[in-house]
Amino acid sequence: MCGIIGVSGIPDAARLAYLGLYALQHRGQESAGIVAMDRAAVARPYRGMGLVSEVFDDSVLAQLPGDVAVGHARYSTTGSTVLANAQPCSVNTRCGPLAIAHNGNLTNAAELKRDLVERGAIFTTSSDTEVMVHLVARSEADTVEGQIREALEQVEGAYSLVIAVGRTLYAVVDSRGFRPLVLGRLGSGMVVASETCALDLVGATIACELRPGDFVRIEDGQVTELPRLSPRPVSRCVFELVYFARPDSTVFGESVDRVRRDLGRELAREQPAPAGEVVFSVPDSSNAMALGFSEVSGIKLEHGLIRNHYVGRTFINPTQNLRVAKVKIKFNPVRDVIHGKSVVVVDDSLVRGNTSQSLVQMIRAAGAREVHLRLASPPITGPCHYGIDTPTREELIASTHSIEEIGEFLGVDSLGYLSLDGMLRAAGSATGFCHACFSGQYPTPVPEDLVQLRHASPLIATPA
Amino acid sequence: MCGIIGVSGIPDAARLAYLGLYALQHRGQESAGIVAMDRAAVARPYRGMGLVSEVFDDSVLAQLPGDVAVGHARYSTTGSTVLANAQPCSVNTRCGPLAIAHNGNLTNAAELKRDLVERGAIFTTSSDTEVMVHLVARSEADTVEGQIREALEQVEGAYSLVIAVGRTLYAVVDSRGFRPLVLGRLGSGMVVASETCALDLVGATIACELRPGDFVRIEDGQVTELPRLSPRPVSRCVFELVYFARPDSTVFGESVDRVRRDLGRELAREQPAPAGEVVFSVPDSSNAMALGFSEVSGIKLEHGLIRNHYVGRTFINPTQNLRVAKVKIKFNPVRDVIHGKSVVVVDDSLVRGNTSQSLVQMIRAAGAREVHLRLASPPITGPCHYGIDTPTREELIASTHSIEEIGEFLGVDSLGYLSLDGMLRAAGSATGFCHACFSGQYPTPVPEDLVQLRHASPLIATPA
Amino acid sequence: MCGIIGVSGIPDAARLAYLGLYALQHRGQESAGIVAMDRAAVARPYRGMGLVSEVFDDSVLAQLPGDVAVGHARYSTTGSTVLANAQPCSVNTRCGPLAIAHNGNLTNAAELKRDLVERGAIFTTSSDTEVMVHLVARSEADTVEGQIREALEQVEGAYSLVIAVGRTLYAVVDSRGFRPLVLGRLGSGMVVASETCALDLVGATIACELRPGDFVRIEDGQVTELPRLSPRPVSRCVFELVYFARPDSTVFGESVDRVRRDLGRELAREQPAPAGEVVFSVPDSSNAMALGFSEVSGIKLEHGLIRNHYVGRTFINPTQNLRVAKVKIKFNPVRDVIHGKSVVVVDDSLVRGNTSQSLVQMIRAAGAREVHLRLASPPITGPCHYGIDTPTREELIASTHSIEEIGEFLGVDSLGYLSLDGMLRAAGSATGFCHACFSGQYPTPVPEDLVQLRHASPLIATPA
Amino acid sequence: MCGIIGVSGIPDAARLAYLGLYALQHRGQESAGIVAMDRAAVARPYRGMGLVSEVFDDSVLAQLPGDVAVGHARYSTTGSTVLANAQPCSVNTRCGPLAIAHNGNLTNAAELKRDLVERGAIFTTSSDTEVMVHLVARSEADTVEGQIREALEQVEGAYSLVIAVGRTLYAVVDSRGFRPLVLGRLGSGMVVASETCALDLVGATIACELRPGDFVRIEDGQVTELPRLSPRPVSRCVFELVYFARPDSTVFGESVDRVRRDLGRELAREQPAPAGEVVFSVPDSSNAMALGFSEVSGIKLEHGLIRNHYVGRTFINPTQNLRVAKVKIKFNPVRDVIHGKSVVVVDDSLVRGNTSQSLVQMIRAAGAREVHLRLASPPITGPCHYGIDTPTREELIASTHSIEEIGEFLGVDSLGYLSLDGMLRAAGSATGFCHACFSGQYPTPVPEDLVQLRHASPLIATPA
Repeated sequence: MCGIIGVSGIPDAARLAYLGLYALQHRGQESAGIVAMDRAAVARPYRGMGLVSEVFDDSVLAQLPGDVAVGHARYSTTGSTVLANAQPCSVNTRCGPLAIAHNGNLTNAAELKRDLVERGAIFTTSSDTEVMVHLVARSEADTVEGQIREALEQVEGAYSLVIAVGRTLYAVVDSRGFRPLVLGRLGSGMVVASETCALDLVGATIACELRPGDFVRIEDGQVTELPRLSPRPVSRCVFELVYFARPDSTVFGESVDRVRRDLGRELAREQPAPAGEVVFSVPDSSNAMALGFSEVSGIKLEHGLIRNHYVGRTFINPTQNLRVAKVKIKFNPVRDVIHGKSVVVVDDSLVRGNTSQSLVQMIRAAGAREVHLRLASPPITGPCHYGIDTPTREELIASTHSIEEIGEFLGVDSLGYLSLDGMLRAAGSATGFCHACFSGQYPTPVPEDLVQLRHASPLIATPA
Repeated sequence: MCGIIGVSGIPDAARLAYLGLYALQHRGQESAGIVAMDRAAVARPYRGMGLVSEVFDDSVLAQLPGDVAVGHARYSTTGSTVLANAQPCSVNTRCGPLAIAHNGNLTNAAELKRDLVERGAIFTTSSDTEVMVHLVARSEADTVEGQIREALEQVEGAYSLVIAVGRTLYAVVDSRGFRPLVLGRLGSGMVVASETCALDLVGATIACELRPGDFVRIEDGQVTELPRLSPRPVSRCVFELVYFARPDSTVFGESVDRVRRDLGRELAREQPAPAGEVVFSVPDSSNAMALGFSEVSGIKLEHGLIRNHYVGRTFINPTQNLRVAKVKIKFNPVRDVIHGKSVVVVDDSLVRGNTSQSLVQMIRAAGAREVHLRLASPPITGPCHYGIDTPTREELIASTHSIEEIGEFLGVDSLGYLSLDGMLRAAGSATGFCHACFSGQYPTPVPEDLVQLRHASPLIATPA
Repeated sequence: MCGIIGVSGIPDAARLAYLGLYALQHRGQESAGIVAMDRAAVARPYRGMGLVSEVFDDSVLAQLPGDVAVGHARYSTTGSTVLANAQPCSVNTRCGPLAIAHNGNLTNAAELKRDLVERGAIFTTSSDTEVMVHLVARSEADTVEGQIREALEQVEGAYSLVIAVGRTLYAVVDSRGFRPLVLGRLGSGMVVASETCALDLVGATIACELRPGDFVRIEDGQVTELPRLSPRPVSRCVFELVYFARPDSTVFGESVDRVRRDLGRELAREQPAPAGEVVFSVPDSSNAMALGFSEVSGIKLEHGLIRNHYVGRTFINPTQNLRVAKVKIKFNPVRDVIHGKSVVVVDDSLVRGNTSQSLVQMIRAAGAREVHLRLASPPITGPCHYGIDTPTREELIASTHSIEEIGEFLGVDSLGYLSLDGMLRAAGSATGFCHACFSGQYPTPVPEDLVQLRHASPLIATPA
Repeated sequence: MCGIIGVSGIPDAARLAYLGLYALQHRGQESAGIVAMDRAAVARPYRGMGLVSEVFDDSVLAQLPGDVAVGHARYSTTGSTVLANAQPCSVNTRCGPLAIAHNGNLTNAAELKRDLVERGAIFTTSSDTEVMVHLVARSEADTVEGQIREALEQVEGAYSLVIAVGRTLYAVVDSRGFRPLVLGRLGSGMVVASETCALDLVGATIACELRPGDFVRIEDGQVTELPRLSPRPVSRCVFELVYFARPDSTVFGESVDRVRRDLGRELAREQPAPAGEVVFSVPDSSNAMALGFSEVSGIKLEHGLIRNHYVGRTFINPTQNLRVAKVKIKFNPVRDVIHGKSVVVVDDSLVRGNTSQSLVQMIRAAGAREVHLRLASPPITGPCHYGIDTPTREELIASTHSIEEIGEFLGVDSLGYLSLDGMLRAAGSATGFCHACFSGQYPTPVPEDLVQLRHASPLIATPA
């Protein structure tokens, strides 16, 4: 997953993009980058590994002048943690300097790449975004917009994009609308961002959320709607609401916090835990869900787990005889709340199960009499091919185990998952969502080799 | 404020100390350090600026062998952010290599320092801990314990200490007991730490909390109680419970989380907010207080503010026309929860008032109809001289303004502080606490020049 | 200017390339890079700004496994000091992973680039090497060799290249032979390098120097000669012998040290300095020339200038009242040798004249009675378009001033330049050399826009 | 060995000290430090590991305001490469802030340290300089000068010192005068430095060289001679002239370059090499000696070895099958000069013999018919206890082998050392020098435990 931002018509656009990326940091912590365009349409890129606050400092931002900028925060995905893959991708094309920030994942990138390579294209990254850039550069359409459109007509999958070509900004969302993208106004300029929380931080007011298939051009802060992309059935990513987006954002027209409280309420109705004496969340992602659960169930809300926010990305384990589960570094139970009680633990979802298993053990060690785990989404049975870095099917505990088996594995007294219907009710609509990872109903064809591509070497491999 | 840890009789003690400091990181983020003692009593120090996770890595820890270690995490205090002041302080004395980690603040350090300098002592830091080291080194007592005791009889103020002299560890708490210190057992070894959350993380079981005046020796994991320090009236720091300690710790015999929920309950009783439609905390320090407030008041608990945990320590502001309050980086309101509502905001305390003012403006901008601020402690009217880095009296808004004036400054519809009695009731006892910053009743004499010392240059100044 | 190296059929090829680059460091200090190919033809690149010893360390080299490697050390050229331009350039093409290290400069790169961009090519650097990569990738020839050959037939200018395509290495020198390239044997493997000093360091024996137009393929240490490139009149860069190459190298079949002593001898014959009492070099580049001058003239050789080899690349000047010429940091006169004497100073060449002016002042300040400057090459009147980073014509003092004027500017008592003929005599042959910077006889057409390209922005500029 | 500098009465003194340390870099590359004193006598220290150009940059120097400064460049000595030992040593004493830069080595430091520790002194480094600081701080003399003098009367060994106490600078040389120290004038200020080359660089004129026992005070650029230290027989370190000092410096009243040429001349007279066809130096330290040798012997001077000045301090060796002697990285023979010849190689001295052995092998591999090694100093048979980091006696090849055996070990056709008398003749005087490492005549008592102290752990060891 990634966070993207675009700025047009605002002096010192790179600093604004930096600020916006700060608010989008939860969408990607692997790398951060900004490309700024100055008045003469000279593009200056800067990308680095790590958090926005680590990559950028005052002296770096001072070298990125201009009132147009594109920014990107990239999620840590297995096997490709290399600077070459950091975005925005910036190149020189016949349309001029082009910078592109991409949130989502293409499903036919491997196939398109094979064809492009045959035709003499050279690739410097293993990212699917570079495929789009080649398609744009090679399109023979008359206008830049025509070139972008021609390229997008060839790709399949999920893409919310911010593209700068010279001083012109484009914002696009694929016709299925997997990933969010929102347009805001700040003074006489415009800001495009993955989530509204970025607009809040920079002080922009929300103009509108881009609909699936929307394609707009922004020049000097002026927005022009371009003809929309060919329509497809809408399939918004429900996991954005369940887990990914920040609760203070409005995504797909819904308050994320509101949806999460409703998920908790639905969960309490579908999967009550009558034996529970206290209910608490696994902070912070399921805080609102525990609140909703408590409200409907009448079980008293507590803070049973404390999260250590100082956990760095590298952690050194003591030697063998002192090995500490990483989850212990991150969470510690509040003994006073838990001791002797029958507790209900609310979490948003369950992926591999290892973290939850450790958490349950920790809660039991703190004296819980009974542990009832409630999950505010259905069992995850398949990988996401649209941009969320879920593990392979084999690693997803719910793809190979029954709920009963999972409960045993976790060591809980009871386990309850929210139903697909319940989740969609809370999300605000029973249709228009992609819930492939829960239901197996993938809205696009999924080529066999897509998985391989996703786990390909970060380095340049010979195509054999 | 600082977090300290000591390890004895556990192989790879430095790694254990590192782990413990991770859990104590909230007590100090300016610098971190560990001194390890190997079997031959060779002391190896390592100190650096920044978080524990930034200062230490595997290669550094590999260079700190031994089964005895002392660790320290130092709080960022104004004006003295220099490596020289990072602890543990380690020197070579006639008792052998000595390493000391100090939590607290001495009130007669300036006076003692003047005298020591007169007698030919040389100082390399501006920290009061170095004063203690000189006193130990110069004591003519027969034993190391005698030397330490002689030194401590001369100092006034707050000190919880972990001291290693060669392979022997000492743990001491001053007779007033300002700062916590807890003893834990891990296998055949011992761990001493500022808070129980550090023992939890390393898997140690709590043996006991040190009482005011306790002085113990630990050799190869064996604890010996030494004669206690001369008794003084007990004055535990109530602010540890209100704000400083982690909610999952047990401090001064009390569950911090329990105390904080009770502070919220007392607050709801003393300062109800009948007009409130929802109540929420300023996360994360007042989460438990908002919970208690909601419970007693019956006002619905919500999550009205989202905290961005990716905020780094340096933040670059956009240029003049885009200046963003630092509080906006840290917190964002959940519009859906706030819009059109009369909200009760619960916070733990109020220091300068600037952050709260910005927060209130932000909450109003998110559409709150009314804002009622409730503080779970009394007005702070004086500085702390015992280790908490409060600003000078002039900067404390409550030392110069009435509650009415503060409410106006903050822009709230109503403002309510918990009373001293209410706070002490929640803290579990009406006596035995230091509440000087709230009440002005300082438990020790406070020399005039103490404030100066605290704000002295980090560099070596000529004593005139 | 740059240093390049290729390794085939030698385990841990990257470490060998690293070692070779160490010996070629004088050819380029701006950036260093290595691309290694493992047994599965996976290419792993690593590039960084700075010296070889700064860019690489053991942990980096450990991540570059394989028995094939290509390495590059890049010279600091004005205006393009960016990592993106660091070589080897490595991309994925339809021939597989391709890595290329280029020494030299193309004269028709701008024109070719314009055409490629028109045809949809995307550029990520401002280097002319990327043009060649595109030409190779787009060639429709049947074999990799055919593709490389087709690409090279289109480019004009100077190129000595080491190219790896998968596990196959290619070495090529343009038909004019501007830049050196030498082939060495080490065990059962092969090493290609810019100079023989790199072969010496890695312990390889010299197999042969590539002739102009040579094109060879190396697989698993086996060399195959491919058909040579279309012939052109040979024009070896004489400046390699005069200044650029290391004196312990054999370049263009000549011992560089031997040539330089002969340059000094010719200089003494053509431009004697009968008044001179001592002769010394500007170390280290003209050491051998001063030796030759002394030998023929009979004037006593001394070491009159001491060079400080600890000079870093950044130097901080004291404030206005203490401004120090950078040349003073680098050189200091030996007063005892100079005081009261009439001295002859031998230097290899004169570019802008500023450094020499400062040196002369310094020598006079050390007490020299007379200063006679002798230059072991002719006046430089034009820029190099073949890879040496000479300044623009306007900045070359000899392009706008007479020898007399230059002597006055420098403040010398006499000034003598070696003649073109004298230089070529010492170089070993009157024909077959490029001496365009001295004579204005450029061996290739020089397009108008070449100069602009060379000074273009390092960043991506819109082509308008 | 170390380089030291002091500045008084010159604005931006730290920048001047930085510049001077640049010129003294050859005296110490392990660490660099500067302490600056501003108008209010506030002392600001900055020290770091590495070269002057690595430790300091513009932003660091900007934080060191004031017109008084003390600087130090420390030599890399075995086993104590830790920041704690970096100088200047700066502490707060009863005389005020004190900063001291020390060149030399005390011979009774261990004994004094034991006594000080007994009396309650605490040590934070393993350096002997800290002993002096304690003695100064503990002296009960009335004046600062009295305190310094009292301290110096207690120490034995070698010390050239620059001390700042508040804004007053002191410069002292021990009564035997082991190490150089020179006084220069710059405008209305003064500069003290280890060598004249530092004065040259900063543009100061030489006022005088301090004589053994000289003790001066400098305030605001005004020098006052204080009573001299108690006289001792003069013993200037002859190795400063032979190897350590820069050839462009004047040391002990002699031009170093002049002495070295004379060493070469004496060597040619004492140890001619009639079979030699060419003579060359091991650059750069013996360049002048080879010149002198050639002059007297009539054997033709050449440059037979090229030194690679880009060698960093860390070098990564290829794997076992490619191991390269470090000397090959540093030197490469010029085949053309050497091949088929009988060569005379001149070096300044021989310590362990390993480097020379490798060099001889390399020269033979380049085709030398005969190799005659000539050393411009006598066999080194004992360690230096006065500041030069020679290895222990066991590692000195000449302490355990006859000249014949050494020649065999090195693999030379003949080997000749200059005699003690010859060396002293060239040095300008047969008396007044310390030549203990050559002759075993140590000018001070050398306590047994001195060697241990010198090789003690960099960390704090228990004194047992």
